[in-house]
Amino acid sequence: MTSSARLVARVPINLGSRSYDILIGSGLIDAPSTWADLPQATTAAIVTDGNVAPLYAGRLKAALSTRYPKLMVIELPAGEAHKDWGTVNSIFDALLGSGCDRKALLFALGGGVVGDVAGFAAACYMRGIAYVQVPTTLLAQVDSAVGGKTAINHALGKNMIGAFHQPLKVVADIDTLCSLPKREVAAGLAEVIKYAPIADAGLLDWLEAHLGALLALDATALQTAIQRSCEIKASVVGGDEREQGPRAILNFGHTFGHAIETGLGHGHWLHGEAVGCGMVMAADLSVRLGLIESADSLRLKRIIAGAGLPVRGPSLGADRYLELMRMDKKAEGGAMRFVVLEGLGRAGVRAVPDQIVAEVIEANSAA
Amino acid sequence: MTSSARLVARVPINLGSRSYDILIGSGLIDAPSTWADLPQATTAAIVTDGNVAPLYAGRLKAALSTRYPKLMVIELPAGEAHKDWGTVNSIFDALLGSGCDRKALLFALGGGVVGDVAGFAAACYMRGIAYVQVPTTLLAQVDSAVGGKTAINHALGKNMIGAFHQPLKVVADIDTLCSLPKREVAAGLAEVIKYAPIADAGLLDWLEAHLGALLALDATALQTAIQRSCEIKASVVGGDEREQGPRAILNFGHTFGHAIETGLGHGHWLHGEAVGCGMVMAADLSVRLGLIESADSLRLKRIIAGAGLPVRGPSLGADRYLELMRMDKKAEGGAMRFVVLEGLGRAGVRAVPDQIVAEVIEANSAA
Repeated sequence: MTSSARLVARVPINLGSRSYDILIGSGLIDAPSTWADLPQATTAAIVTDGNVAPLYAGRLKAALSTRYPKLMVIELPAGEAHKDWGTVNSIFDALLGSGCDRKALLFALGGGVVGDVAGFAAACYMRGIAYVQVPTTLLAQVDSAVGGKTAINHALGKNMIGAFHQPLKVVADIDTLCSLPKREVAAGLAEVIKYAPIADAGLLDWLEAHLGALLALDATALQTAIQRSCEIKASVVGGDEREQGPRAILNFGHTFGHAIETGLGHGHWLHGEAVGCGMVMAADLSVRLGLIESADSLRLKRIIAGAGLPVRGPSLGADRYLELMRMDKKAEGGAMRFVVLEGLGRAGVRAVPDQIVAEVIEANSAA
Repeated sequence: MTSSARLVARVPINLGSRSYDILIGSGLIDAPSTWADLPQATTAAIVTDGNVAPLYAGRLKAALSTRYPKLMVIELPAGEAHKDWGTVNSIFDALLGSGCDRKALLFALGGGVVGDVAGFAAACYMRGIAYVQVPTTLLAQVDSAVGGKTAINHALGKNMIGAFHQPLKVVADIDTLCSLPKREVAAGLAEVIKYAPIADAGLLDWLEAHLGALLALDATALQTAIQRSCEIKASVVGGDEREQGPRAILNFGHTFGHAIETGLGHGHWLHGEAVGCGMVMAADLSVRLGLIESADSLRLKRIIAGAGLPVRGPSLGADRYLELMRMDKKAEGGAMRFVVLEGLGRAGVRAVPDQIVAEVIEANSAA
């Protein structure tokens, strides 16, 4: 590390031969030592988007340049609307056009969309090349850059096409969060908050005490939140890499959330906003199933609202919500299954009758 | 098995939790017992093409119908020209349009293109669903349906986009070979012949004795050739699933062959024809490197010619060949590497100076 770089935590993800570390700290992007243990490659490419490139691409390139003499920057159009095959193919065009072989290395520099698209490109290029996640949003640092899920959208559904492809390492430089709009910070906090009800009741207490500091981008609070989030995600993913079972609890609030995102059309609500509201619905569902107390659900709702996230869904109508959720990939074998709380800090998956789901939607969305 | 079904061989591929069997025999498609150990699924889809569908899709559907009540047939346009993203996406359209979840099961019924495209669709749909290979060409039965390589073409190169995704089982029903055009039989024999010089010198003797029987589609000869091919491929793939090293020997003749295919434009020479000619070049290269005797190379060339395969490359010019091969994904780190024979029945990978490669091309292609 150079004197200005400060590594705060190193969270391991244990996946046998695919194990890797998440580095969390300040000044990590600029420090050549951050990248010193990566494999040699004839060619490397920084995949980023039009928002992030002007801020960090030059700095990452400078830090990597001695290590990778042939280093290109591939700039994608920003936004969820471009999370599609055309964008993935533009990465292939650039890699093939430069004669990149299967030892080429990709760096995904940006938020969740860049990470998902670049990760999927790495999964498919020549049947799989190595890549590194360098998330620059809170949501990506605590969730989407960790665990190897990559995907693009299809006209008929979000994240329908993808691969499990683990990165070589994840570098979460909290300095990048200073450039985030407030709305994106709140959206990222939704995924931080998520870990508390599903896996760590103590984190709820901590969030109640530190929500103000997080919204003010206090470095210590952010580092703690990111580290705890990554530790919980690492533990869950380490036990179920390909989401055959337990990993599904990480989708708490997501079935409702995806319905909101798809129902409104992508770009209206941020993913984290939809998840925030979706968690309110999923907690209410847990109350109606007799699994948790109403007070627990209200406590979670207060934290979500306190983060500046919506707690009431848009008025799509219960039937439309149900239709959208049936299309969601978490629905399996026709039965609608939901991640529910079985207590504060403990989650499970249950099949739920449509009628109860409809009641939850009606109670928690605009008329 | 029903009385008309005859299972001749079961070749295991040992890949830990991804292990599976290749079934070889007659009447296998129609026998419900062939499919009896596959997992239950709410939905299954037979992916095939316009050539194969009228011959076998109805029969496979009948055999599977009691097991998979919701069973659709997805018919792709036939031919290498359609081995692209648009065709893969048409599979996603059909699966999503029918509400297929991640427990859906695909059956790839057809030749190498169908297997590669359907396998890649299975690898990416909802981050990976299960599939079964039901190869109906000799080339697919002895090579492309075995080992989990899937891919589509990119405008800048063949098989550039893909995944390693192992099937649940491979069912090689030799009855399907009776409907193959002679030219396709010869193209399939190229991949059978390939296994002899790289792994089994005794297979050369057997081929010299049985080439006529193979070309006449003698059932016993075909079964023996398919079984031996699958055994060799299983052994190589079992030791190197993701082609980090030894598996590369299966590409013997392919670097030259891909250059011929791409140089002529896909559809002029069949893949097996290009590989046949490519093996003549690769054997000659091995002679020029002092690794094998000229007599060995000529012996291999006689077998290839005897199978009705071309042994002289098209007149693209050595420079164009070299340029095309540099684009090939087997080229790594700028150095041109070739699979060469280190004796009859033994292969390795070597970096070779351009000058020697150019000599090989000039000696073995039309002026």
